[in-house]
Amino acid sequence: MGISGGCFMEYPFSKSVRGLILLCILSCLVQCCLGAKTRHFKWEVENMFWSPDCIENVVMGINGQFPGPTIGAKAGDTIVVELTNKLSTEGVVIHWHGIRQFGTPWADGTASISQCAINPGETFVYRFKVDKAGTYFYHGHYGIQRSAGLYGSLIVDVAEGEKEPFHYDGELNHLLSDWWHQSMHEQEVGLSSKPFRWIGEPQSLLINGRGQFNCSMAAQFGNSSAKQCKLRGNEQCAPQIQHVLPRRTYRLRIASITALASLNFAIGNHKLVVVEADGNYVQPFSVDDLDIYSGESYSVLLTTNKDPSKNYWISVGVRGRKPQTPQALTILNYHPSSASKLPTSPPPITPPWNDYNHSKSFSNKILALIGSPKPPKNYDRRIILLNTQNTINGYKKWAINNISLTLPATPFLGSIKYGLKNAFDQRSPPETFSNNYDVMKPPINTNSTYGSGVYMFDFNTTVDVVLQNANALSANVSEIHPWHLHGHNFWVLGYGEGKFEEQDTKKFNLKNPSIRNTVVVFPYGWTALRFVTDNPGVWAFHCHIEPHLHMGMGVVFAEGVHQIGRIPNRALACGLTASVFMNTGRN
Amino acid sequence: MGISGGCFMEYPFSKSVRGLILLCILSCLVQCCLGAKTRHFKWEVENMFWSPDCIENVVMGINGQFPGPTIGAKAGDTIVVELTNKLSTEGVVIHWHGIRQFGTPWADGTASISQCAINPGETFVYRFKVDKAGTYFYHGHYGIQRSAGLYGSLIVDVAEGEKEPFHYDGELNHLLSDWWHQSMHEQEVGLSSKPFRWIGEPQSLLINGRGQFNCSMAAQFGNSSAKQCKLRGNEQCAPQIQHVLPRRTYRLRIASITALASLNFAIGNHKLVVVEADGNYVQPFSVDDLDIYSGESYSVLLTTNKDPSKNYWISVGVRGRKPQTPQALTILNYHPSSASKLPTSPPPITPPWNDYNHSKSFSNKILALIGSPKPPKNYDRRIILLNTQNTINGYKKWAINNISLTLPATPFLGSIKYGLKNAFDQRSPPETFSNNYDVMKPPINTNSTYGSGVYMFDFNTTVDVVLQNANALSANVSEIHPWHLHGHNFWVLGYGEGKFEEQDTKKFNLKNPSIRNTVVVFPYGWTALRFVTDNPGVWAFHCHIEPHLHMGMGVVFAEGVHQIGRIPNRALACGLTASVFMNTGRN
Repeated sequence: MGISGGCFMEYPFSKSVRGLILLCILSCLVQCCLGAKTRHFKWEVENMFWSPDCIENVVMGINGQFPGPTIGAKAGDTIVVELTNKLSTEGVVIHWHGIRQFGTPWADGTASISQCAINPGETFVYRFKVDKAGTYFYHGHYGIQRSAGLYGSLIVDVAEGEKEPFHYDGELNHLLSDWWHQSMHEQEVGLSSKPFRWIGEPQSLLINGRGQFNCSMAAQFGNSSAKQCKLRGNEQCAPQIQHVLPRRTYRLRIASITALASLNFAIGNHKLVVVEADGNYVQPFSVDDLDIYSGESYSVLLTTNKDPSKNYWISVGVRGRKPQTPQALTILNYHPSSASKLPTSPPPITPPWNDYNHSKSFSNKILALIGSPKPPKNYDRRIILLNTQNTINGYKKWAINNISLTLPATPFLGSIKYGLKNAFDQRSPPETFSNNYDVMKPPINTNSTYGSGVYMFDFNTTVDVVLQNANALSANVSEIHPWHLHGHNFWVLGYGEGKFEEQDTKKFNLKNPSIRNTVVVFPYGWTALRFVTDNPGVWAFHCHIEPHLHMGMGVVFAEGVHQIGRIPNRALACGLTASVFMNTGRN
Repeated sequence: MGISGGCFMEYPFSKSVRGLILLCILSCLVQCCLGAKTRHFKWEVENMFWSPDCIENVVMGINGQFPGPTIGAKAGDTIVVELTNKLSTEGVVIHWHGIRQFGTPWADGTASISQCAINPGETFVYRFKVDKAGTYFYHGHYGIQRSAGLYGSLIVDVAEGEKEPFHYDGELNHLLSDWWHQSMHEQEVGLSSKPFRWIGEPQSLLINGRGQFNCSMAAQFGNSSAKQCKLRGNEQCAPQIQHVLPRRTYRLRIASITALASLNFAIGNHKLVVVEADGNYVQPFSVDDLDIYSGESYSVLLTTNKDPSKNYWISVGVRGRKPQTPQALTILNYHPSSASKLPTSPPPITPPWNDYNHSKSFSNKILALIGSPKPPKNYDRRIILLNTQNTINGYKKWAINNISLTLPATPFLGSIKYGLKNAFDQRSPPETFSNNYDVMKPPINTNSTYGSGVYMFDFNTTVDVVLQNANALSANVSEIHPWHLHGHNFWVLGYGEGKFEEQDTKKFNLKNPSIRNTVVVFPYGWTALRFVTDNPGVWAFHCHIEPHLHMGMGVVFAEGVHQIGRIPNRALACGLTASVFMNTGRN
């Protein structure tokens, strides 16, 4: 693993590739002039013993690390990850969350959608451009492998010579996740069982892969029975202390890769000024704490203007579900205070889990920075997606307009491009739901059906999506769902309560809507978003809660598939694409 | 799942296949005349919750069953198993242990050797002939999936109108296995870790997938603290009672699919007459108990001539390793005694684990039934395989002639047939080991190397293999290894103590050696076997102890690969065979 220089060439030349070499040199020259680099990594994915929260478990690691290595790059760079699957019997893929994959839709890393899973012992080369500065991350996107710990950070700085629209002296990274002691396989079997077995609340929350299950760093302040942590600091579960100098401004990058939990992030005694969301600049605003849902990322500015003889808590707590998980804690350590000095006051109190007004207030503050791209004034097509909890033959599922997504053995990208009509449901999934449906009550008919249909969009058109929340199977329950769109950013036109009505469009924000790749749908509410189908490929759009997606809570979008370039063999070497091309050949 | 009639046709006809239909009808007619049937099964492999030993665990089941369904067939039948992988992220294959796969080497079900693993969501059709009556079984052969419970029985009766060389009134099946509470994934990570973590002794032994971890059926006789089992009989872990009528002869089929344990099988107060081993008739002999190693099968005749007012213990205990696992027990229930009546005396005592003379005495009694095929008088090639425990970069391994087998991403069958030289080590692995090597002492140099070379044999030649045991890494330790050969039976020419010497060949039994597919190598000893390379294909030959194979204890044989027919696409749809054929096509 390493970061190569600017004119890195991936492979030594073989015979009769002089033209290619010339092209490569030219392309290198162009890249060098622009300062863009190709950054080359060799990764091995394997299971290993690890103690993320001081309890040993099997964790899916990369190059022996958990979380996986942080990729650092600059806008315009090309990332090349040669990923070798060192698992024994499991396939693997890696999704580069927030990277749009312009021109490389086969590198989006979604099994069954953009590529065949990488078989044990095989290597797949992810090569893609990071065209936009921002706080990103990567994670497994096959089964529920994200829950096994397959994730890490991907930080893209502005291009050489470019400047951020805000100043900072240093940066600190916070990759937030939740952790269960039950193995991924047990969780998965439970979710697919009849009777259904829910995974429950996480045992621990992790900051940069570290949490403390059996002790608390703030035991002295707690009213719980947790004992004080006695950690030497070199344990896998010891908190990563964040070191700062007084009187400086820091950029805190915060990303949530949780399987389930909605989180609240705060730093004792400090204000946070939000400046970036999902790789897009926002109109700066100041908060005491920040709600973050799975799949989202933020940058906040922190000014170290407090008493430098003290340290301060960095705390992460659960929101949106009745929490049974202690806060994750680490320490903001002011130089030259000792890092081992505990703060003198208790950690910030996470707002009550069901204070949705707090959440909505935060979401509504997020507006695009002046000068950001504005949405097209009109849409060409609107689809309304009803989110419901259902049953199919007694199995508990989530469904969208009454269809619970089941992923096919042949990835859509290949089957759509090559017209393999047996690979998935050819019927278009519904664009809306019955007007009679009462989103405030449990479904009258809980039955749903499996489906693998695709929303096919005309290229370069404007699509509005309204995500409509509803009551789950139990009365008086409606859950938070953070929806993530692959291959695009979208404008968040608005949030609303109850059932979406045509007249709600009047309140859409077309002036300075935030630009995101993930957006939350609040309980019993709706969220409207707009995007342009400008990226040829097949793209997942799904609830980022790992068990919800596994239970069918997602849809598939496709646009301009016939314009895409040559899909690498390895992305097609399964299912029907393998069969067809092994018979006929591609050349 | 079901058993079809004689003239089953696999697929409905499509256009322009009249010739094929005609051929099929003809072939059906021929089959009907001979009484052979095609038996068709649809199987789905999935993980499920199950309590094999009264403790719930994730188990790999087939069609919701553990063990998988028992296949019953007659010699000459064709078995068709349409296997769909319903696992979430794991590939799967099924090996039909003891079936030689004449003409269908791609159906042998060994990942990396005979086929690409079946991807999640995909279906592979295993179609093969069971040409020889006998007691067989099937199991996963990818990673250590056998340890996850992926196995079942395959019983082949003599063809219609044929007779066994012994009489019996009924038969009882006993599939023996061992069981751990640690998941397959934890076991696997431990075996591949530095420092090494051994899986330890099994928590339970299972008879037909049933054992009792937290209680004993024979607690009243025990000197352990185990409490008496209180089972209603409908629990997944309740013993399967074996019901018999008095004054009859029963054929007991006994097969061991253990991951680790060598076993001893006995029935209180009853003699067992051994008549079959691994699908081959043996000269009948009577014993009080029977040693059985992983990968072996026996049939024994039992005469129900004891007091019919009592029931009797069927017991299975550990041999060859210091046991930490209680006996598995079930009950031989004489009609009309109540099945719930416990035997009046304690279960049979398993012979001391290290009484190897008892084991050897049993092995030496196994001789081919008069009239069985005799081995060729001379061999064309002899290879001597030294079994050693080693280290590679600090990882604990097993090696054969100092090479620890690592399986390639591209299965050998395809890569050899199509000459893909980058797919595996082209150097031939060594035919013997240094004459200086002291098999009685730990290795002086513990280092070994990884390898994926193949022993390439000329077609229709006679090969002798001498398996040479040695001291493991620790002093005074040499373990039992049951070696299993795919695609063949072999003659067991002899067992010996210490290092094999040329003069030992004089004692080879060429008159009536037993015919097997699995044979044990005793501690500090050697075992010699002979086989004919009459089956075009690529065949694993390996220690049947699951973690030993996973640690590299195997070799690969190939013969007549260029004579084999068209390998199905699905068996080639991975690694280099996928790449090559997706570029060029096969047609």
